[in-house]
Amino acid sequence: MGGDFAPRAPVAGALLALAELPAPLELHLVGRTAVIEAQLAELLQGELASLAHVRDRILVVEAPDVITMTDKPATALRGKPGSSMVVGLRRVADGLADAFVSAGNTGAQMAASLMLLKLHHGLTRPAIGTIFPTAAQPVLVLDSGANVDCSAEELVQFARIGATYAQDLLGRPNPAVGLLSVGEEAEKGTMVVKDAHQRLLQAGLNFIGNVEGRDVATGACDRGPIDVVVCDGFTGNVLLKFYEALAPTLIGLVARHAGLETDALRRALHELDADEYGGAPLLGVNGVSIISHGKSSPRAIKNAIRVAQRAYESDMTAHIRRRLAETVPVSDVGSAA
Amino acid sequence: MGGDFAPRAPVAGALLALAELPAPLELHLVGRTAVIEAQLAELLQGELASLAHVRDRILVVEAPDVITMTDKPATALRGKPGSSMVVGLRRVADGLADAFVSAGNTGAQMAASLMLLKLHHGLTRPAIGTIFPTAAQPVLVLDSGANVDCSAEELVQFARIGATYAQDLLGRPNPAVGLLSVGEEAEKGTMVVKDAHQRLLQAGLNFIGNVEGRDVATGACDRGPIDVVVCDGFTGNVLLKFYEALAPTLIGLVARHAGLETDALRRALHELDADEYGGAPLLGVNGVSIISHGKSSPRAIKNAIRVAQRAYESDMTAHIRRRLAETVPVSDVGSAA
Repeated sequence: MGGDFAPRAPVAGALLALAELPAPLELHLVGRTAVIEAQLAELLQGELASLAHVRDRILVVEAPDVITMTDKPATALRGKPGSSMVVGLRRVADGLADAFVSAGNTGAQMAASLMLLKLHHGLTRPAIGTIFPTAAQPVLVLDSGANVDCSAEELVQFARIGATYAQDLLGRPNPAVGLLSVGEEAEKGTMVVKDAHQRLLQAGLNFIGNVEGRDVATGACDRGPIDVVVCDGFTGNVLLKFYEALAPTLIGLVARHAGLETDALRRALHELDADEYGGAPLLGVNGVSIISHGKSSPRAIKNAIRVAQRAYESDMTAHIRRRLAETVPVSDVGSAA
Repeated sequence: MGGDFAPRAPVAGALLALAELPAPLELHLVGRTAVIEAQLAELLQGELASLAHVRDRILVVEAPDVITMTDKPATALRGKPGSSMVVGLRRVADGLADAFVSAGNTGAQMAASLMLLKLHHGLTRPAIGTIFPTAAQPVLVLDSGANVDCSAEELVQFARIGATYAQDLLGRPNPAVGLLSVGEEAEKGTMVVKDAHQRLLQAGLNFIGNVEGRDVATGACDRGPIDVVVCDGFTGNVLLKFYEALAPTLIGLVARHAGLETDALRRALHELDADEYGGAPLLGVNGVSIISHGKSSPRAIKNAIRVAQRAYESDMTAHIRRRLAETVPVSDVGSAA
C-alpha cells in the first residue's frame, strides 16, 4: 500500500519480478486484499495480460491499516498495528517470508524493521546502503539516510556492515572502504570524521583512508578503486538526492543543446538510472528489509525485489551477523544476540 | 605562485583577463619576480604573443616565500611571512589593491584573509560561496568548504552574507534562501540544522525553509526557485567536489555510449563547467578574496579575476558589512566594527 504510486506500481512490479525470477520464488502482496485483488485483475486483464501465468505465485495477505507518507513513524506503528508495514515485516520475523520490500514511508519501515527484526548484536543503529553508479564500478554509500547525527563508532559499524554487503551482493573480495571527508589527510574533516578515521585504522578492514566527493563520482581515488563509502546519513542523503536529480537534469541539458533525442541518451545512461538499482537495503537488522523510493516505478519495484532475492540467497544477513560477532570485543557486549 | 599549474596558469590567466577587461583595471602579479617575469616573457613571445599590448597593465610584486599546497596554514603564515599569499592580501588590506585572487593553498588563503582583512563585525566564521549550475538558474551554495563543524548561528550568518552576495553578484532581488536538509519539514535534519531552521524563521530574510539535495540540482523546490543554499562546509564541500567530478564523468559516458563527440558535448554543457565560474569568494571578510581551485586552468583564473572585479565593482564587501550591521542585535556586539 506504500509509495506515491500504490497500489499500481508495487503490484505491477511484483508481476514483472515473477516473470523474471524463477519458481520457487513467491511474492506475498500485503495490504488491503480487496484493493490488491482489484489491481491485480485490472493489470492481468489489461497491459500485463501476458503475465497471467505468474498469478499462482502470488499470495495476497490482508493488512487493513495504511501508513501514509507523512505519518510520524512511532505514532504510525503504535496507532496502526495492522499496517502492511507491520504485517509484512512480522512475516519475515516469523519465518513466513524471507525478505520484505516497500516503497512506503521510510521512517516507518526503519522503525518497524528495528522493532520486528531487531538490530544485530554489536550495532547501535542500522544504515541504508545505496549503490551509486560511477565512472568506474558502482560504489556502496552508507549511511544514505537512516541516521542524521552519527557517532564515530557508528561510522565504524557502517564500515563493517558495508564491507560485508559489498562482498556478498556486489561480489567484491576484500572490499576497499573509504571514509567520506573533505580531504584525504587523516586530520581533515569534522570532529566525528577525524575520530572515525583513527578507529577505522584499527578495525581490521581494508580501510583506504579518507575519500572526497569527487572520488564518489569517479569510483576511485589515488589509492585505487573504491567499493564502500562510509558517511553520516545527512551527507549521504543529500548526496543521493542530488545525484538522483542531477542525472535527468544533465540528460535534458545535453538533449536540448546537442539536439540529441532524450530516449537515446537515457538508454546510453541507463547505468546511471536509479530505477536500475530499485531498492536500498536497511543494513544491520536481522532480516532483509529493502527500502524503495516513494516514487518507484513498476520497474524500480521489480529491481528492488531482485535486490531482496540476492540479499536472501547470498545469506547476507547471516554474514553481517558473523562479521560483527568476530569483531565486537567481549567487553563491549551488553547482552546476548 | 599558488596552485598546481603555477606560475604558468595564473600568469596566462592574468593576460587573458586583461585582454577582456578594460583599463583602468590593472593586475599585480605577486611572487618571485624572476619566475614571474620569465613566465610572462615566455607566454608573450609564444602562444599569447597577440596580448603583448596588455603587458603595461601588469605590475610584478616581489614575494620571496612560497606556501606549498601541503603546508599547514598556521605554520605557513608564521614561517613564511614573505609569501605571495601574505604580501598580496596585505596590499588589499593597505588599499594598494582592490581584490585578491589565488589558486594556492585554500587553508592558508583563508587564514591570511582572516588575519589581514579581518572578519566583518557580527560574524564568527567566513564562508566560501560557490555557484552551482542547475537545471534552472545557478544557485549560490555556502559554506562550500571553509568550516567543517558549524553552529546553528553560523549557518544563519552564512544565510545573511549569501543573500547579499546573491543580490549583488547574481542580481537576484530578495533572494530566496534555503537550508540544506534531508526533508522539507522543519523537524528534519541534524540537531544543528533543526536549530538553524528556527533561527532562520526569525532572521528577516526571504527564508523558504529546508531544501534537499535534489533541489540543489534542479535549482528550485515546491516553493519556487532557489537563490541561496545554506549548509555546513563539510556537506557543501562534499557536494561541490562530487559535482565537479560528475559532470565530466557523465559527458564521457554520453560520448562513449551515444557516439557523440566529446567537444560538442562539452560546448553544450559549458554552463556546467567549473572553469566558467573560476573562483569562489571567501565571504565575510573586509575585502575581496577569491579562492580558485588548485587545478585552475588559465581560463578558470581569468574567470576568477572577473568574479573579483564584479565583487569589487558591486561594492559587495560594504553591502555585506551594512546588512550585518542592520541585523546584529546591539546586545550581541562585543566591539566596534
